[in-house]
Amino acid sequence: MKMVIDTMGSDNGTKATVPGIIAFLDKHKDVEIYAVGKKEELEELAKFDNVKIVDARDVVPMEAGALDVMRRKDSSMLVAINTFLDINADAIVSAGSTGGFLSATTLKLKLIDGVERAALVTPFPTKIKGKKVTVLDIGANNENTPAQLVQFAKLGNIYVQKLFNVKEPKIYLLSNGAEEGKGSPVVKGAYKLLKEENMPGFKGNIEARYALDGEADVIVTGGFDGNIFLKGVEGVASMMGHMMKAAFKRNIFSMIGYLFARKGFKEIQETLDYKSTGGAMLLGVNGVVVKGHGNSDAYSFSCAMDVAYRMATSHIVEHIKEGIKENA
Amino acid sequence: MKMVIDTMGSDNGTKATVPGIIAFLDKHKDVEIYAVGKKEELEELAKFDNVKIVDARDVVPMEAGALDVMRRKDSSMLVAINTFLDINADAIVSAGSTGGFLSATTLKLKLIDGVERAALVTPFPTKIKGKKVTVLDIGANNENTPAQLVQFAKLGNIYVQKLFNVKEPKIYLLSNGAEEGKGSPVVKGAYKLLKEENMPGFKGNIEARYALDGEADVIVTGGFDGNIFLKGVEGVASMMGHMMKAAFKRNIFSMIGYLFARKGFKEIQETLDYKSTGGAMLLGVNGVVVKGHGNSDAYSFSCAMDVAYRMATSHIVEHIKEGIKENA
Repeated sequence: MKMVIDTMGSDNGTKATVPGIIAFLDKHKDVEIYAVGKKEELEELAKFDNVKIVDARDVVPMEAGALDVMRRKDSSMLVAINTFLDINADAIVSAGSTGGFLSATTLKLKLIDGVERAALVTPFPTKIKGKKVTVLDIGANNENTPAQLVQFAKLGNIYVQKLFNVKEPKIYLLSNGAEEGKGSPVVKGAYKLLKEENMPGFKGNIEARYALDGEADVIVTGGFDGNIFLKGVEGVASMMGHMMKAAFKRNIFSMIGYLFARKGFKEIQETLDYKSTGGAMLLGVNGVVVKGHGNSDAYSFSCAMDVAYRMATSHIVEHIKEGIKENA
Repeated sequence: MKMVIDTMGSDNGTKATVPGIIAFLDKHKDVEIYAVGKKEELEELAKFDNVKIVDARDVVPMEAGALDVMRRKDSSMLVAINTFLDINADAIVSAGSTGGFLSATTLKLKLIDGVERAALVTPFPTKIKGKKVTVLDIGANNENTPAQLVQFAKLGNIYVQKLFNVKEPKIYLLSNGAEEGKGSPVVKGAYKLLKEENMPGFKGNIEARYALDGEADVIVTGGFDGNIFLKGVEGVASMMGHMMKAAFKRNIFSMIGYLFARKGFKEIQETLDYKSTGGAMLLGVNGVVVKGHGNSDAYSFSCAMDVAYRMATSHIVEHIKEGIKENA
């Protein structure tokens, strides 16, 4: 397997990506890594037989759009994308500008035949231990049509079938009420279409309040709403973590309390720590494209690489190609 | 002050509203209550001098829309709204069907001159102790235009000025990125309009991730997105509460840990417990209209009544009338 890594561009740059790559290699000896970035920052990687350093002098800023990326010919991001195409790689990972990376990979790798829009997808933890719920699109699009949401339902369905081995995933539309007839005009339209074509596993609307209860396998949403859901969840989890720390630091007794309760709390933090899911995958393009969090540390970047590894080994792109063809 | 209460219709009906009213009266002797519902369920209230029982035999179901409410002439909700108009009351509170209550009050009380759409508003807790952030619309609308979001900014501005005594509230648009140019077409349009008219306190976009950090005073969003934000936040808070309980129940040591840490944790729960904010107000109509949570218990219903009380005593409706006139 060949994996291309854009090592620059996130908040922590090579300080996160280099140790992240090393941690990943420790688990996956069989992967050939193409590390793209300023070569003087990648020296630590040179000692690995299965790492190739690809020098690129420019760094795409975090707020860059697709055009910026395409213009910066010597940026680590664009060089990584071109390397992916040149060597026919299995996966590409970047923690740089979300908008820039998603648009540039969509432009260069192209959408799978029959797919109207790519969708960014990530699994969320739920109240049920070990059960994940997959939400898409969480931010690749600003605006979607009902027909695009129907395609997202199909992409999510294949993703959960292949990645979590669920035979008939339960699919819901994210809405402002559970009843039929609730929702924005786009959600109402998607509901109608999914019902008309008897989409297997389609169960109707779900409110954001119950999204993490563990009932749904796939939750379908437009990219703008999905992004608000994703970031709202992250924000509250961060606020609660902040408050928990303060609660334990209150006095010597609460600190002693912490010593006794910490095992359970470590589990909570791990479940809710979005870093452990590491990356979101762009579904619908010709290749495994994984976007790590902009503020990735070494651990979360290695998790993003894990995501890319699992996607590539499960041949998700081929399954989507077949699935979309069947449905056309 | 005269306050009309729809005592029926929520998940817990009079089991929540009757003790809720009694708890409220304990703090506010000066309020005259009109309790609308099945009189045999309201007998406990009859002993209070300042409570009038208004018999209504029908109950609006939780999924009812505006038409259902208008059709059910003897429902506690419609009788409450008519009572509000007949006696020229100061406030009305219901924990029944959100859609039905919001639409029926908008129809019967009418929008304030110059207001295009009413917005549901509630304050959220933030990372900064004691600081709240006011988000609107959290669910009165399925779809909004840029011009409507601009009006929501103005309504939110007045609400925070009058309710929290903030001189120049910091106003943000909820979006999928902080930079100008981010957002759905509606959010981008609202950004442009707010900038063009130099809205005082307008600071640009905010991501959902930072919404509860305590920087913003007002966050403006379309009703569909706002509802996803509200319910997403509630869902995670509920999931974390669930996990915390499990962490403490793990073994005898963690239970001892709880004894030492519980004071801090009680504070966390109170901060995040949406019940303590109790109700959301419908801004933009001719009257103080407060919607309690559908699953209100006595405590949260009395909090919703508190919200109505504060709104009425701060003359929020008059301030909005003046504010909208000035801006017209």
